[in-house]
Amino acid sequence: MKAIVHHGPKGLDGVKYTDMKEPEPKAGEVKVRLKMAGLNHRDLLVPNRRNEDDPAVILGSDGAGVIEELGEGVTDVLVGDEVMINPGLRWREKSDAPPKEFEILGFPSHGTFAESVVVPAENVVKKPAQFSWEEAAVLPLSALTAYRALFTRAKVKKGDTVFIPGIGSGVATYMLQFARAAGARVIVTSRNDVKLEKAAKLGADVVVHTNSDWNQELANEKVDIVIESVGAATFNRSLKVLRPGGTIVTFGASAGDMIQINIREFFYGQYNLFGSTMGSQEEFEEMVKFVQNHNIKPVLDKVFPLSEALEAFHYMDEAEQFGKIAFKIKE
Amino acid sequence: MKAIVHHGPKGLDGVKYTDMKEPEPKAGEVKVRLKMAGLNHRDLLVPNRRNEDDPAVILGSDGAGVIEELGEGVTDVLVGDEVMINPGLRWREKSDAPPKEFEILGFPSHGTFAESVVVPAENVVKKPAQFSWEEAAVLPLSALTAYRALFTRAKVKKGDTVFIPGIGSGVATYMLQFARAAGARVIVTSRNDVKLEKAAKLGADVVVHTNSDWNQELANEKVDIVIESVGAATFNRSLKVLRPGGTIVTFGASAGDMIQINIREFFYGQYNLFGSTMGSQEEFEEMVKFVQNHNIKPVLDKVFPLSEALEAFHYMDEAEQFGKIAFKIKE
Repeated sequence: MKAIVHHGPKGLDGVKYTDMKEPEPKAGEVKVRLKMAGLNHRDLLVPNRRNEDDPAVILGSDGAGVIEELGEGVTDVLVGDEVMINPGLRWREKSDAPPKEFEILGFPSHGTFAESVVVPAENVVKKPAQFSWEEAAVLPLSALTAYRALFTRAKVKKGDTVFIPGIGSGVATYMLQFARAAGARVIVTSRNDVKLEKAAKLGADVVVHTNSDWNQELANEKVDIVIESVGAATFNRSLKVLRPGGTIVTFGASAGDMIQINIREFFYGQYNLFGSTMGSQEEFEEMVKFVQNHNIKPVLDKVFPLSEALEAFHYMDEAEQFGKIAFKIKE
Repeated sequence: MKAIVHHGPKGLDGVKYTDMKEPEPKAGEVKVRLKMAGLNHRDLLVPNRRNEDDPAVILGSDGAGVIEELGEGVTDVLVGDEVMINPGLRWREKSDAPPKEFEILGFPSHGTFAESVVVPAENVVKKPAQFSWEEAAVLPLSALTAYRALFTRAKVKKGDTVFIPGIGSGVATYMLQFARAAGARVIVTSRNDVKLEKAAKLGADVVVHTNSDWNQELANEKVDIVIESVGAATFNRSLKVLRPGGTIVTFGASAGDMIQINIREFFYGQYNLFGSTMGSQEEFEEMVKFVQNHNIKPVLDKVFPLSEALEAFHYMDEAEQFGKIAFKIKE
């Protein structure tokens, strides 16, 4: 079967469209014939973390398709079921942190950028009927990340003001949609006017251009929750717009890992900082229900054929997208 | 009346034992004839924050004594009542953060290092009969800070392991006592063997000398809560002993305000960081009940006559104490 794999040189130079063996489901697993896959920032990072002589791995965490074969002992699903895949393996209950055996589909185990994938049966969920295949494929990883960060961790509630610096990524657009659906007011920033326009259409209450002086423009805001995924570049500016006793939730650091905090300002402000990544099976199911109840549609930026995945990797690397990028695998 | 005031040169050079006018209670206030006062780190910081030409202010947040005079409309307390003072003014309910009008007794308003003090009637609480005057005087500020940080913020519970780097301060000794009383296991560090011995006697389950390699010595520990009041010097070492999903609560930065955090490690660890200072009236009352129910005795390091307060300031500045320092004002 055709697949996008990483093999050889570190980074995107080692990413290629090539042939791989069809996988076979073991006991407790299912084989899914994929129709669509979804691109995540993680797929760009994995090739940097691997060595030249590591065996080829199929990239990709997100995907949706039809169950083609059941491993021994699988009874909850049927061949022919239309499903999407929860890429969080072996994290079942909503808990403080994932268990040691937790991993994300798409390295070390083979992922979804292929004609088929094998996953534990518990990691497939019926595709909501309201979703197209594209939409189902781009939901799992980023919507789960957004859901846990916003609900389990930051405990957003009706009437809160939520601040999302740097709108555009898949997670950020889900955050915007989820926060609005929960009855919160949402403020976003971007250095890109087109993204700000799209964010406003998607429901953002206030949009701020990054070139302007946030802290002045937001001087009269009382922000309850800041969604911080940029890291070094924005962290302290984010702190300054937070109300006393407010919450920052962090799940990404696209602009640098090391941040400086004035810890005295932090404790005088009675602030809360929560780290979050992905989420459990339990949160995945809650998220899918939430999305259905509020009739939320994933924001789709662009669909590429799987054979052109590398082009999509570069496009995401330049942070040009607003929302999610999908790969078409099979009509 | 005699008092310890700050006036003139910044810092401890401007602190003197001198005469001040007896205060008079206004409507809603009470005048307390003080028997004992308690020293806090805040009393050392206030003189650094004032200017040469600011009017003289009586220092001191903590104190205990006898009500001598009632302002108009005060009905809840009687002349002759033996009380201790909650130095947190105008923060009533347990909330995310204090209201704007919150301040701490002992600057800008006159404090407790004097023969008498005037405070709002709601800020006096009956002295628990089990306490000596010394004990009542050294309880309020640090025990309230410890209580809010540990219970309201970090939500310590039975079976948790709590890590307190740098045992010795008043707040830290209350933390140790409160955490043990709540059924937690407590690990402490110090660079001072005598302090470690005292901490062990006070109930610490594990004591670690700061010169040793914590991270190795605590490699097999699963710490649920870190109490971080040192700041720059220990913050990242503290992070390393925390279990995934664990909590750091911070309320002090004696070794420097600016800290660096690797935010990627922070979110992969699903950590929580809570800033905390002081607490509300509601938490003060909960704290006093907790202390009574668990028969906790404040750890008293040394008692100085009020006239020798400056000597005590220098003694605390060198961090030599284990527990609290009191000033004797009246037999």
